[in-house]
Amino acid sequence: MGFRNVALVGLGLIGSSIARAVREAMPEVGLSGYDMDAAVRERAAQLGLVDRVADNPGDAVGDADLVILCVPVGAMAEAGAALADHLPRGAIVSDVGSSKAAVAASLRAVLPEAVVIPAHPVAGTENSGPDAGFATLFQGRWCILTPADDARVEDVQRLSDFWTSLGAKVERMDAKHHDLVLAVTSHLPHLIAYTIVGTASDLERVTESEVIKYSAGGFRDFTRIAASNPTMWRDIFLTNKEAVLDMLQRFTEDLSFLQRAIRLDDGDTLFDLFTRTRAIRRGIVAQGQDVAEPDFGRQSG
Amino acid sequence: MGFRNVALVGLGLIGSSIARAVREAMPEVGLSGYDMDAAVRERAAQLGLVDRVADNPGDAVGDADLVILCVPVGAMAEAGAALADHLPRGAIVSDVGSSKAAVAASLRAVLPEAVVIPAHPVAGTENSGPDAGFATLFQGRWCILTPADDARVEDVQRLSDFWTSLGAKVERMDAKHHDLVLAVTSHLPHLIAYTIVGTASDLERVTESEVIKYSAGGFRDFTRIAASNPTMWRDIFLTNKEAVLDMLQRFTEDLSFLQRAIRLDDGDTLFDLFTRTRAIRRGIVAQGQDVAEPDFGRQSG
Repeated sequence: MGFRNVALVGLGLIGSSIARAVREAMPEVGLSGYDMDAAVRERAAQLGLVDRVADNPGDAVGDADLVILCVPVGAMAEAGAALADHLPRGAIVSDVGSSKAAVAASLRAVLPEAVVIPAHPVAGTENSGPDAGFATLFQGRWCILTPADDARVEDVQRLSDFWTSLGAKVERMDAKHHDLVLAVTSHLPHLIAYTIVGTASDLERVTESEVIKYSAGGFRDFTRIAASNPTMWRDIFLTNKEAVLDMLQRFTEDLSFLQRAIRLDDGDTLFDLFTRTRAIRRGIVAQGQDVAEPDFGRQSG
Repeated sequence: MGFRNVALVGLGLIGSSIARAVREAMPEVGLSGYDMDAAVRERAAQLGLVDRVADNPGDAVGDADLVILCVPVGAMAEAGAALADHLPRGAIVSDVGSSKAAVAASLRAVLPEAVVIPAHPVAGTENSGPDAGFATLFQGRWCILTPADDARVEDVQRLSDFWTSLGAKVERMDAKHHDLVLAVTSHLPHLIAYTIVGTASDLERVTESEVIKYSAGGFRDFTRIAASNPTMWRDIFLTNKEAVLDMLQRFTEDLSFLQRAIRLDDGDTLFDLFTRTRAIRRGIVAQGQDVAEPDFGRQSG
């Protein structure tokens, strides 16, 4: 059974992409929305993203059978608390946060009576705001549901069907395991990209203009990641601290190992690793999680 | 004054791209080529990349007025030595290596009589071999020349004009400074990408299949870089050791600083850096060194 009315709390990149995707895939579904930023609410109304932009979160969710919180993970508890007195009985509350155990715990705490099923669509771009969204953002991407052990099978299935209708492939996972997997596939890469872009901009003997000019050598791929929403990413690191620090520790050890190989002119160690990492890339392209064109199709042709 | 006959020693991604670009931009120029791998020579002949595929490096350069060594930087000395007795008087010998001080020194040593002007086109993809090349690879990219202090102005200008004709923007730089700039814009990013892809493939609690499935969260951008030619990159790290280790040291310090901020729940430090790094991305897009489409245009649409 599908949903009749979906409420989106937060109308940035992800919220506005869900709105657009619902319009295309389920035009019969009612859409309401709210954002704590008045300018975003106004822009969402101009764009006609939802049927009704509410002035407060309670109004947005009053007749919803699915509420999706599309706010930074550090703002989930506050966003959830604001709904507590307005949620229709039986409505499913979900979210799109990139860390799951902490979000699940805080939503449980502020919405003890509600049906909460956390979710994480593994999709996004470096752009933010209601104008950055697009309907195909979730096409062919994974959406990971992390229902609690006591979640009702029917509820989980309804949410799963919703994401499938938006083009996503759905997976279920324990929240803790999710946080570990995403720490390596997403959070650590972002932390490293932010770091190296910061390092490059702090050099004395190399100017920022030189860094920008010669970025095609590899650096520019890091800058795209390091242009992601600062609030969102601050919150992710603070709410998935344990797994991120664990992965960071391993990364640092591996980096020291390569550093030593360079210092000792040990070319074989370098060559062996560099050969091994090529295989992983092939797996990602083979499984449709990236395009095969060289350089992401930037220059070929 | 342009060149009449260009010889390419090494017919992989870069050598074959130069061949294709010369064909398009300067169809009147004679092209000869050699590769130490017989299979590559055969494939280059099939593709008709050059007018004449020679069986040995001496034959390739016999009537050239420009010789470009397109081999891994660790193979430059050997490639140069093989030409020593066959180079026409006055021919310019250049290269495309990603580290310059070491290459310049080794070419000087094996070709003491020759006119050597090292060069580095900052362009490439993660693919290798003669089939991977394409004529537009250098379009709008920088090519850095690192002539020695005693290089003749006319010779440097001729080589500069050659690269401009292939669509590149030419810059001149001291070899040592080049190596420092590229250490941060290219070598360190590659080292880090190789490391994190290796780290991810060594985990016990996260499977390789999970890493591949959820790579869209950031990881996949690193895997593209970490799919680059292993021989080429081994040689770069060994020949630009000092600058790479210097940059790595700074990066590690900065990473420890962020690690500490996460451990101490210091969100302000994270937020400040993440805001600063966005500006660098804007500079790269503004200067045409990358496309502005979100996610490199992968999903938008």
